[in-house]
Amino acid sequence: MTILVAYVPRPEGRAALDKGIEIATRRNERLVVVNAGPGGRQEDPSIVNGYEAERVEERLATLPIEAEFKQFVRGKSTIEEIEEMVATLQVSVLVIGLRKRSPVGKLLLGSMAQEILLNVDCPVLAVKAA
Amino acid sequence: MTILVAYVPRPEGRAALDKGIEIATRRNERLVVVNAGPGGRQEDPSIVNGYEAERVEERLATLPIEAEFKQFVRGKSTIEEIEEMVATLQVSVLVIGLRKRSPVGKLLLGSMAQEILLNVDCPVLAVKAA
Repeated sequence: MTILVAYVPRPEGRAALDKGIEIATRRNERLVVVNAGPGGRQEDPSIVNGYEAERVEERLATLPIEAEFKQFVRGKSTIEEIEEMVATLQVSVLVIGLRKRSPVGKLLLGSMAQEILLNVDCPVLAVKAA
Repeated sequence: MTILVAYVPRPEGRAALDKGIEIATRRNERLVVVNAGPGGRQEDPSIVNGYEAERVEERLATLPIEAEFKQFVRGKSTIEEIEEMVATLQVSVLVIGLRKRSPVGKLLLGSMAQEILLNVDCPVLAVKAA
């Protein structure tokens, strides 16, 4: 089975990566970290740059388990890419990061997180940045 | 550490219970299953009746781990009760059930699930009914 992490270059994405590494290592499962988005002419803030991608790959290479980083920037939406991976791989859990609600309490759950939670068949573990 | 399950008497609540039992047994952690809501004069569809509560308790009693069912119907909201338990117990993961989106795709994530995902500090595992 595979632990899948939906990675974004923000604190909540790093929290999801930490948790995915912890679970995959403890359960001795394969870890796949995916960063995906349509890309395009505009800078997409969800897409990891080359420098950060290398740092993630270096970290995965130190783990005692099979682990890989995949990046998809080929026009499909993030949710399409994630659904495809969940359908293809045997995913035991998909780990996503959520932003912490501010003390003012106005934050709503992002549409991406809602799409993932509603559409993906496998269990979804939501963690917050420290 | 404790695995906490937010239980409702619907298929998604039963899916959360199954998953919570699986995780707590595998990890040999304490399991607490909570059913909570304000109650009141109107029938509250989230509140488990006495017959179902007994069935849950019987099932928990057969497990090889410490497991208990707690029901709170004392005027506080479900999210208040759950936040209090997460603050009091050492919760490693809170398990919740989500409804499956229909093929028409119109379902939005319920406000209760959103409140839990945004407000609770511990990791939240969301599972769907089979």
